[in-house]
This record gives sequence, structure tokens and C-alpha cells, in this order.
Amino acid sequence: MPGRNFLFIPGPSNVPERIMNAMHVSQEDMRATDFPEFTLPLFEDLKKVFKTETGRVFVFPASGTGGWEAAISNTLSPGDKVLMSGFGHFSNLWIDMCQRHGLDVQALDVEWGKGVPAEQYAEILKADKNHEIKGVFATQNETATGVASDIKAVRKALDDANHPALLYVDGVSSIASMDFRMDEWGVDLAVSGSQKGFMLPTGLGIVAASQKALDKMSSAKLPRTFFSFEDMMKVNDNGFFPYTPPTTLLRGLRESLNMLFEEGLDNVFARHKRMGTAVRKAVEAWGLQLVAQGPEWYSDTVTAIYVPEGNDGNEMARHAYRHYNLSLSVSVGKIAGQAFRIGHLGDMNELMLLTPITGAEMAMKDMGYDIELGSGVAAAQEYLRSTKKQIKN
Amino acid sequence: MPGRNFLFIPGPSNVPERIMNAMHVSQEDMRATDFPEFTLPLFEDLKKVFKTETGRVFVFPASGTGGWEAAISNTLSPGDKVLMSGFGHFSNLWIDMCQRHGLDVQALDVEWGKGVPAEQYAEILKADKNHEIKGVFATQNETATGVASDIKAVRKALDDANHPALLYVDGVSSIASMDFRMDEWGVDLAVSGSQKGFMLPTGLGIVAASQKALDKMSSAKLPRTFFSFEDMMKVNDNGFFPYTPPTTLLRGLRESLNMLFEEGLDNVFARHKRMGTAVRKAVEAWGLQLVAQGPEWYSDTVTAIYVPEGNDGNEMARHAYRHYNLSLSVSVGKIAGQAFRIGHLGDMNELMLLTPITGAEMAMKDMGYDIELGSGVAAAQEYLRSTKKQIKN
Amino acid sequence: MPGRNFLFIPGPSNVPERIMNAMHVSQEDMRATDFPEFTLPLFEDLKKVFKTETGRVFVFPASGTGGWEAAISNTLSPGDKVLMSGFGHFSNLWIDMCQRHGLDVQALDVEWGKGVPAEQYAEILKADKNHEIKGVFATQNETATGVASDIKAVRKALDDANHPALLYVDGVSSIASMDFRMDEWGVDLAVSGSQKGFMLPTGLGIVAASQKALDKMSSAKLPRTFFSFEDMMKVNDNGFFPYTPPTTLLRGLRESLNMLFEEGLDNVFARHKRMGTAVRKAVEAWGLQLVAQGPEWYSDTVTAIYVPEGNDGNEMARHAYRHYNLSLSVSVGKIAGQAFRIGHLGDMNELMLLTPITGAEMAMKDMGYDIELGSGVAAAQEYLRSTKKQIKN
Amino acid sequence: MPGRNFLFIPGPSNVPERIMNAMHVSQEDMRATDFPEFTLPLFEDLKKVFKTETGRVFVFPASGTGGWEAAISNTLSPGDKVLMSGFGHFSNLWIDMCQRHGLDVQALDVEWGKGVPAEQYAEILKADKNHEIKGVFATQNETATGVASDIKAVRKALDDANHPALLYVDGVSSIASMDFRMDEWGVDLAVSGSQKGFMLPTGLGIVAASQKALDKMSSAKLPRTFFSFEDMMKVNDNGFFPYTPPTTLLRGLRESLNMLFEEGLDNVFARHKRMGTAVRKAVEAWGLQLVAQGPEWYSDTVTAIYVPEGNDGNEMARHAYRHYNLSLSVSVGKIAGQAFRIGHLGDMNELMLLTPITGAEMAMKDMGYDIELGSGVAAAQEYLRSTKKQIKN
Repeated sequence: MPGRNFLFIPGPSNVPERIMNAMHVSQEDMRATDFPEFTLPLFEDLKKVFKTETGRVFVFPASGTGGWEAAISNTLSPGDKVLMSGFGHFSNLWIDMCQRHGLDVQALDVEWGKGVPAEQYAEILKADKNHEIKGVFATQNETATGVASDIKAVRKALDDANHPALLYVDGVSSIASMDFRMDEWGVDLAVSGSQKGFMLPTGLGIVAASQKALDKMSSAKLPRTFFSFEDMMKVNDNGFFPYTPPTTLLRGLRESLNMLFEEGLDNVFARHKRMGTAVRKAVEAWGLQLVAQGPEWYSDTVTAIYVPEGNDGNEMARHAYRHYNLSLSVSVGKIAGQAFRIGHLGDMNELMLLTPITGAEMAMKDMGYDIELGSGVAAAQEYLRSTKKQIKN
Repeated sequence: MPGRNFLFIPGPSNVPERIMNAMHVSQEDMRATDFPEFTLPLFEDLKKVFKTETGRVFVFPASGTGGWEAAISNTLSPGDKVLMSGFGHFSNLWIDMCQRHGLDVQALDVEWGKGVPAEQYAEILKADKNHEIKGVFATQNETATGVASDIKAVRKALDDANHPALLYVDGVSSIASMDFRMDEWGVDLAVSGSQKGFMLPTGLGIVAASQKALDKMSSAKLPRTFFSFEDMMKVNDNGFFPYTPPTTLLRGLRESLNMLFEEGLDNVFARHKRMGTAVRKAVEAWGLQLVAQGPEWYSDTVTAIYVPEGNDGNEMARHAYRHYNLSLSVSVGKIAGQAFRIGHLGDMNELMLLTPITGAEMAMKDMGYDIELGSGVAAAQEYLRSTKKQIKN
Repeated sequence: MPGRNFLFIPGPSNVPERIMNAMHVSQEDMRATDFPEFTLPLFEDLKKVFKTETGRVFVFPASGTGGWEAAISNTLSPGDKVLMSGFGHFSNLWIDMCQRHGLDVQALDVEWGKGVPAEQYAEILKADKNHEIKGVFATQNETATGVASDIKAVRKALDDANHPALLYVDGVSSIASMDFRMDEWGVDLAVSGSQKGFMLPTGLGIVAASQKALDKMSSAKLPRTFFSFEDMMKVNDNGFFPYTPPTTLLRGLRESLNMLFEEGLDNVFARHKRMGTAVRKAVEAWGLQLVAQGPEWYSDTVTAIYVPEGNDGNEMARHAYRHYNLSLSVSVGKIAGQAFRIGHLGDMNELMLLTPITGAEMAMKDMGYDIELGSGVAAAQEYLRSTKKQIKN
Repeated sequence: MPGRNFLFIPGPSNVPERIMNAMHVSQEDMRATDFPEFTLPLFEDLKKVFKTETGRVFVFPASGTGGWEAAISNTLSPGDKVLMSGFGHFSNLWIDMCQRHGLDVQALDVEWGKGVPAEQYAEILKADKNHEIKGVFATQNETATGVASDIKAVRKALDDANHPALLYVDGVSSIASMDFRMDEWGVDLAVSGSQKGFMLPTGLGIVAASQKALDKMSSAKLPRTFFSFEDMMKVNDNGFFPYTPPTTLLRGLRESLNMLFEEGLDNVFARHKRMGTAVRKAVEAWGLQLVAQGPEWYSDTVTAIYVPEGNDGNEMARHAYRHYNLSLSVSVGKIAGQAFRIGHLGDMNELMLLTPITGAEMAMKDMGYDIELGSGVAAAQEYLRSTKKQIKN
């Protein structure tokens, strides 16, 4: 098929040329004497992305799922009670993992389209006078529904209850794209992955841990070696790794951080918000509904859109792939088929963003949806051009 | 600036990943014993693109301009009379080159927006009873105006006059994108370059010569060494080059031919026609005028579009570059500022093509043009989706 | 520093250009309808490398260490008794992992320089009448000492005792470089990684499991989600992955398998044996001793070499890195400083192999070792040229 | 064939990874408003490599041969008398080009193994009282014989005769590798190419012209368009090119200059001298003769070596290619078969350099030469290690 494939799934995101080339390098000796000159500043700079000064960041050759496992296995023991909430495929998967690791999971079942029920958390935490709950879990961005949650509110629920449980946040599809403040929000474990806001291929699970979290390592009884914080810390401190690290991904991560810092994290977040808003303008012009049930739940990295009843959004997405070389994301879990998703995170600008909109319009029209060609595009164009940055001429 | 730059100039065109990687290889010994196993089939396959069985193709480490020079210097002598026509920046440049090489140039000045005046050629050739005209020149695709010319008609003019002059064709921005038939049309010298339909970076001047053209070498007195056909032939026949060839570009050219043949040349041409038509649909919806003065002149690789009077199209193009990371092409020569151009050749599909349309709409709106956002997009979308290929599900 | 770095550590090995470019591709949708057309043959072809028809192969975004964890956590329960042997840094690390996962480890302490004590295993297994031992572990190639072990002999020990324990093999630095026959040798769990014989960057843990091993999944109580065979199997069967796979590494793996099959696995093994022998010829000419205590222990992927007493081999290796851009491998664990290592696995030919020999000679001479420059080189040259393949001229 | 090919021909040289990746970028608009921000400093920095402040440098999408043609066609007219000397394949080719361009060539036939006969030049120039000679030509490094010439001595010959002829220097295989001082030596036209000391693929002819040379443009009658200095100057001054430039090569050239300046030109030259000396040490140890007839003619970028009488050096080189994946360079012209060549220019370090020595030893031994394996290696090793730079530990 001539021409490029357009990838608008909520990760892997598009890897910019700079990062592609930064990774297109020879293998290197991960025990070389000058390797720490590369790794130590990398570890330090990663902390800036998580906005933590007191915590530390671990880089595992894994994925976000591996990051979840690292977060729990280093800090919890079988039988430990944890408070979680499920409102989409990925928040549910984390619940499943905790159950399979023998944790005593209290999982709140939340309507899809909403996010972490901070008020309900508050009540439960207040009621937990004996502090049996050891961990409180929150998915900052549920990729399956395009729903963002308020982590600060979860912190407040803990604080209001004066509760010592650790706060675990899944930031896989939000960190480095949407605002995240580990220290300020009192997050203890934050999990991310390479293939989203970091604009890298899949292959790194990136986990930040607070000092409070690290203090739990000695008592945490879940088994761990590959994902062991202790093993990492012992050699990371000298710039090395306990087993062979994926050096090309680390070189790419270095370039990723360079790009994030050059643009400025706040500008990155503002850009993602602007991109997300533009997509929502298009959806509104189409007359379709978001899965997210209100502005307080809007995600700036992925948008899930209900298709008109009686249609199969996944069939439409597959049609777009076959006919227009456009990778939209299918809907999964309990809304499978009822919706489709557009990922708009990472290395993204205005004209890139308009592509899934033009393509989705064509595919929806092909499938017989009552959609006016150009309508979503025009709405997004107008929003984007009226909010464009002033550039000196 | 985050996100990719969108390049829609009429060359260099976008280099597909397959070709990029085919060129990302180590340097090699161009005198290796197995080098001819690579080059000899390459030379043969190039002939298929020019649709010549009796001619031969030369690959110079140069550009299309170098190809022009190779075509004339191997076949003409100072003082030779040639018939040419100018109707745009590039046809005029070839005239200029011929004059500077001491040829006796009869250059017809044609209104920009039209192409090779085949009827006028016919008259002149008929009148040239003594066959003083040694070469007849035609620019198949004038990149500056988006005007295609009818090469078959020029052949007919020669044939009707029973005229022995050589037929020189500038196919730099048409060959491998638009139909070209060297043998059938009796073209003697055909010039192309790597950075257009061949989807490669700039760096190769590709010139095909008929046997009739090659027969002129012995008498042609223009000096040549770098561009000498004779030198090339002597060693090309054994698979080598008279001086160091650009092997990485040749490796890319191999992949380019693979891709062209996999898709099928006729499919490539049909795709370009479809892309060109879609752009013209958008222009019509915008209420703007093409520089090309009628369907018989429409180019399928580049479209030049007049902006509303009182505006500067080049200023708009620069605005699009600065604000939307979109490279449109400026207008040059006598229409400089009055128009802008969209290149749509090479590795191009539907959603790629919609990008300069969405971007130009935004930029034109920003500049105060009376353009309805989404209007051109919708027209192109409708045309593209209604003409899409059936794909088995 | 001008010029390339020469990497001769026992992994990561040098990634050939073909594989580099196969990975230099855009991210893709791992849920695309045509993704299984890529993955299903890949899974099948991986089985050929392990030489298993009845087992299956899992590809984790991890490392060999992760592969170890996958092997045990899917098949064992806390308290299970396992028989292991330690004779180097890596075999000891696997022991450590098993202990930390709550297994009841009987670890035989073997002199460094020797490998798996198959006879001792035989005795222990015969004595284990109640079949309390659930797993027998063998490191096929101990990377720290350059010692290869006889897996077939371990199988024989099990068979002779008619013992049902699973056979676990660490083949991280041997599989795809040295002979390995999963079905024939009755291996139940075989662990490899991407950055050795597969000639890829670090980032994949590749684990093969026999049907007998897979049958243990239902009873195995070690917790697992990221490394779960069950989760993988459910979706691998359809060509997908339970979480985002590292698609660029998978694309590279495809090219790796292409290269291995083009050369032929037996030729690959023979080449490694020839390379290993050449290094040993050089060591002999230097008058130095191998860490491996006899031909039955020689590894064909890595050679560990004792330096003359009173010298620090690691200091010499660091000197080689700083002055000659040569990455030799340091010695670790109980022989740290007493030796240095040369990795010679993966994409390797004669002249590549001579480089660490020329470089080590210079570095040893610089450090004052009593080494004759050119002596090791000459021995290796003579061996390599006298054993070169006949090539038709 | 597994393992890398080793390329030791005198160009193309090995392209370092940094430069490879700098060129692995998307095509760009060569008329973009910010393009001059890239090109203008590039033009300036090129002057530093030629060591000229008053001249200017032109970059053509061509090769060194094209550079030769640019040098003559912009400054000479048919019939102009020029003084040249031939002592190898490449100096002879330049003579041939001048003849074919209608110049009146006085070509001194010099024994191969020696270089520019400065004393003979001096006599001829003194005798040319009427200054009929318009140009004096010197090949600084004859690639076919590995012979370097003294450009300063040619300048002196001109000065001593008080002769106004332009001085033309072929520095294709010397500039950026060996000392070159355009202004100090009064060179008027200096020709280089991308694929040698600049460490790039073939594809750029790089020509520097003095003000005195530029003043000849108006009177020079040789035809030129593609290679026109005038056309280049008009737009280069604004950062643009008269026709599409090969932007990826230019991006690579930028990185090349970065690397040259980071190392320091003088260090680059010293490194080449050290590499050349090491090869000569090996040749001496082999008991073979250099083609260069004495130290005053030694080239530091390529060494031509006579094989023992009765042998065919080119057959040996082809053997090395087929059996050891080593690209040595064959001998050409009047010494074809009597010698072979080792290129050692560009991105080269100690262990790289030892590779053609180890490989040539094996190939020569295979061909039955009376060569002791390891002998040349040992001599080169000893020289290299005894001259290595002190590095702080």
C-alpha cells in the first residue's frame, strides 16, 4: 500500500525522527566505565518528568504492565488489603493483577465514562479506622474510555482520613502528556511506559517510588527479582543495572527527555489539551457522543467516541485501516463495538491531528453513518487556528 | 516544533521508510566482483520505467539539471539549431542552459498555464525543409505551473513533417508518476531525477537515450566528461561506473523500482491521477483558479493555484510553514506571489493528500482569504472515498 | 573518539545492519487485523530455533533474567524443591532468584571453570525416590566463566533415575549460537534473550516450554501476571499479545530468524565453534590459561582468560576500552580481576574476531604482561585460514 | 555471509554512525525560510576545512570528477594552455578531461611512484615568459599509487617564476585528511569529494575557488550551467541553491564538519599520519615494497603495495573479498595486478586499521606469498601502541 500508515492509537505513539535516530546506534557495553556518565543524569532527569525530588525512578526492560507489577510486588504482601476502582479495560486489568498476586482487593465497580470515585474513596478511607487498607489505587487516565481522573482528589481523600495507605497511580497513558505532580500530590508509586508520552517504542516500564514506598520494601513479601527495586537501587546508584539494560531504548529515552525539556513540560501539557479539545470539537460537530461523561473526565491523550446506535465502531475502524491506511483504536471490554478511539498523544501537531478526523469522516460515511464530510474537520480547524501560538514573523 | 513536517512540494517528495532503510547501509566497494550482480539488473529495470527496450538509461550522481546537460552535451554541437518552448520557470531554465551551451535556440514564448505548443511545433517543423533543427524540446510537466504537455502530439508533429530531429523530453517531475512511453512516443532523450516519482533524495540525474540519440555521440561536439555517455557505456556494460557512483542512492533506487513494480506502473499513474483530481476538487470547492488553463494541461504531480487577487500566495505558504509545519511550494517567476503550489507526487495516499488541503485552508483563512474551512477537504474526501479501490474484507 | 567501538562482550552482541534497519520502522497497531500474519509465522519459526515441535515459545518484553522468572513462576510453587548448581555469576543469580521466590533450593557449589555436575545430579536424582525434586536446573553456558555444560547428560541423569522433574535450561548465551535440541534432550523450560545469538538489542526474554511444563501451570502457585504463560497463550494463539508488545524488536526478531535460517542453524553453530577455537588458539599462543578447565567445558560464545598472576585483568580491559575503543568483558564474582573475557557470539566473522585479539595483545603489552605482539593473532589467523570454507571462484 | 564487510578502499570511506543518522532524516523544502540558517554557516565552516578566508566553497551534487569539471569550466577557455603531470590513474584522468574540453595540455609523464615534479614545473614556468600557461595542475594525493605531492613546492615554482597562472589542486583523497592550506599555499581551485576525508557517501563535489579564480569567470568560455559558479553564487549568498540540492548529504556534511572540528583538524591530520605510518610498518615487516618511491611521496590516506613478482595482487584482493569479507583496493592502470592498495582515511582508529593488515596477511598466505602471519600486525601494533595518546585514567 503506497503512502504512510497513520497511527492514532493511544500508544504506541509516533516516534519522532530524532528519537528514531538516537536509538539507531550500535550496542554498547553496559559495564563500560563511562556508562554512568550517561545513566546518572538520565535517572535524575526522569525525576523531573514525574515531578519528584524526594522519590526515585526505576527503568525496567518491560512494559506498563510490568511497571504495575513492580509497583505492587516491591511494596505489598499477600493478603494486604487494597482499594481500587474499575471503569475500563485497563483499570480492571490492574485489579485482576492484584487479585492474582493474592492481595485482598476491594474493587469499586464504576460506570464506564467516569473515573476514580474520589468521594467514595474518601468515605471508605474514613471508615477504615484500623488502617487495614495498605494501598489506594487510581488510574489517572483510563485508555479504554478516554477518561482522566483527579489524582489530587484521591490524595485529599487520604489526607482527610489521615490515612497512611500508599497511593498507587497508573499514569501509563498520561505521564509526560498530562499534568502529573508526584511530590505535590503525594503519589507513592507512579507507573508509566515508554510508548506513550515518552514517544518511544514499547519496551520500558518506568516506575517512580516515593521514600515512603521504598520504606515498605523490607516488609513487602511478594516475590520479586526481575522487578526488584532493591536490586536496581544497589547498582543504579553507581550508574549500572542488575541485568543487561536495553541500551538503545535508554539512548532514545535520553533524546525523549531532551525533547520534552526543550518544549517545556507545561507546553507539552498545554499542547495535549489543545489537541484533545480539537478532537472533541470535531466529535461535537459530528453530533456524536463521547464515552467520557463530562468535561471533568475528559482525557487529553485519547478520546473514545460512541458511534450511532446500530453500528459497529470496530468494524468502521477496521475499514479505515484497510481502505485509508489509518489506525484508529477499537473499543474493548463492555463497550466493544459501541465506540472507537482516537489516540492523540506524544509527538503530535495540528495537521497530524486532523488526519484521523478526515479519515474517520470518510470511513464513517462509507459505513453509512449520518456524517457530513468536512464538518468535524472544520470545527477542529477553526479551534486550532484560533488558538495557534503567535510566532514572530 | 513538535510533530512532523508535512512536505508537499513538487520534489523532493516523501521518501518511504523502505527506501530510507535501503539506503541506510554501509558504504561498499564499487569495484567488487559481485557489484555487477546488483547494477546490471538495475540498469535493465530502469528501462522498464522509461518504457524503452531499445534505448539505454544512464544514472549520474547529479540532479535533473545535470540530466538536462547530459542530454544536450552528448548529442549536440555548438551552433546546432533547437526548437524549444518556455511556459514556466523550468522550461525556461532549460532554454537558458541551451543558449549558454552555444546552441541556436528558437524558443517559443508560451502563456503560463499552457504547455508545449504542439501545433506551432508542427508548423515550424514542416517549414524546416532543410532539417536545420537538430533537436525538439518538450517539458512533459512544468513544475512551476502544474502544466502537463502532450508528448505524443510532439512526436506526431515530427512525424507529420517527416523530420529527423531528436526529441528531448524533460520528465523530471513526471516520469514514474505519469504515463511515459519512450519507445512508443519516439522520445530520444528523456531526463528525470531521483527526488520526484522515484521517491528518493536528490542526487541522481537519470537520463534515457534512444539508439538514434546514441548515434549522435560521435559527431556531437559539446564538451563532456562527467556527463559523458561514452564513458558510462564503456563500463556500465560490465556493471561498473567510470567514477565513484553514489552506492547508497543506487541501493535506494533498487528499492524504489521494487516498490514501483510491486504496485504496478499503471496503478502508480492511476493513483497520481486520482490524487491530482482530488486536489483540483478541493480547489474548485474553494472557488479558486488553477494556473493550468484547462483539463488538457492538468498535471497529476503538482497543482499551482492562484490566490484571490490582492493576496500574496507565497506569504501564505510561509505562514503555513511557520504555524502549521506545512511545506507548500511557493510560486516563482512571472507568477511569483500570485499563486501557491501543492506537490502530490511519489509515495502518497489519501490521508497524506488531505493534509495540505486542511493546512492550506487554515493558512488561507488566517490570511483573510474568503475560504470556508472544511470545504475543500469535503470535496476531496468525497471524491477520494467514492473512487476508493474495492478491498476484499 | 574517531572510529568505531569494537564490542566483544558476551552480549549484547553486534546487531547486523539488516536487523538494525528491520527495526528502524514506524510504530504499528498491535491490534491490526493483519498483525497475526506477521506474528503467527514468527512464533512457529522460533520453535525451529529451539528445535521443538511439541512445545511453544513465549516472547516477553523483558530480558533473560525475566525469562528465568517466567520459567519458574509458571511452573513451580513456593516450597517446591529444585536441584541447581552454581559455577559462575549467572548460574548463581538464578539460584538466588529461586531462593527469593520461596523455592527449596538444593544448590551444588561447583568449582568455577567446570559446569553442571551431571554425575552428581544423577546420584541425587536416583536418591530422590519420592520425587520431591520438582525441577532440575542447568546453565548451558555460564557467561562468567566461558563454560558450556552437557544438557544431554543432565537429561540422561533424569532418565536413568526415571525422575519426573522438569528440566530447566538457561540458554541465554548459547541458544541460536550453540547446538540446542529441546525435544531431543527433553528440556522443559528453555530460556533465552534477544541480545546474544539472536543478534538483537536487549529487550526480549524468549522462553520455550514443553507440554509437560505447560501442564504444570494450573497447579503452579507462584504469582505471575506480566510473565504469565496462560495470558500469553490465550491471545498468542490468535496472533496477539496480552499487553503492548515491543513491535520493533519483533520486526528485528523476524529478520534475525531470516538470517539464521539463511545461513542454516548447523552452519551457525559450526561458525561459532570455529570462532571459539580460534580464540583459544590465540590464548594458547599467548601462554595464558582459560578459566574453563578442559575441552569438555569450552564455550563457543565466550572465552574467559586468566591473566598472569599479579595482574588485574579488569584494569587491562578498561585500558583497552580507553585507549583502543575495544570493549572486552571484565571478570566478575570470585574471579573478578583474575581474568578477562572475550565474547564471540552472534554476527561474527574472521576479521571481526581477530580484532579483540589484536587489541588485547596491545593492551596486555601496555600493562606489562609478557606477551609477544602478533603471537595470538598469528595462531588464530593460521587456524582460521586453514579452516576457511571453499568458495567457488 | 555473516559479519560485517571491512571496507579499506581509498574512498568511499566508512561513514560513522553519527553521520549515518544525521542523513537518515525526512526530505525538506530547500526553499524554506529557515533553510539559510542551516546552509550559511555550513558554507562558512567549509572554508575552514580548506583553510581559506578569502575564497569560497561550492557544493555540487556530483562527485570529485564533477568537481574537476567545475574547476576548469568556470575558469578556462578552449585553447587555453595548462601545465599538468600524470603519475597515476587519477592524475591521468584529469589530463584526459582537460584535453576533451579543448584545453592545450602540456602533460608531463612522471614515473608512477613519484608525484608532481615541482622542479620541472619551475623550469617550464620560468621559460614561459609570455605567460601562455593559464593553469598549473597538481594532484595532491594520487589515489592509484598512494603518492602525495608537495603543493607548497608548486606554489613556489609559480612564485619564483612570478607567473600568474592559476593553481589547480586535486585534493579529493587528501583534503580533510592531510594538511591543506588554500590561502597560505596560494591554491586557486581545490577539488574534493564527500566520500573520502569528509566521511560521507559519494554524491558531493566540493570545490573551493580563490578570488583570483572567481575573477576568471567572466572571461572563461567553457560552457557550464550545472557546474556554474555564477549561478551558485547568486543564490548561495542567500543560503539557497540554483537547483534542488541533496539535502540529506548536506545534513550529513554538517555532522561531518562537527566531527572534524571536535577532533580538531590538526589532530585529524596527525591521526592519518599515524595510521599511514602503521601500515607502512606492516609492509616493511612483510618485506614488501611500496609503490611510493620514498618518504617524500608517502600518502597518509592510501598505501599501494607491490606484491612479490609473479603474483597478481588483484587476484589476492578478490580472494580477500570472497573469503574474508575484506575490501582491499585493486591496482589499476599500468601497475594493474602488480600491487594492491589499502585505504586508511576518514573515520579510522587503531583496531580498524589492523583489520586489513590481519586480513591481507591471511589472503597473501592463502595465495602462497612468502609472508609470516602476524608479522605485519606485530609491527603495526608496536608502532600504534608506542605512539598512543596519553589518556587520563
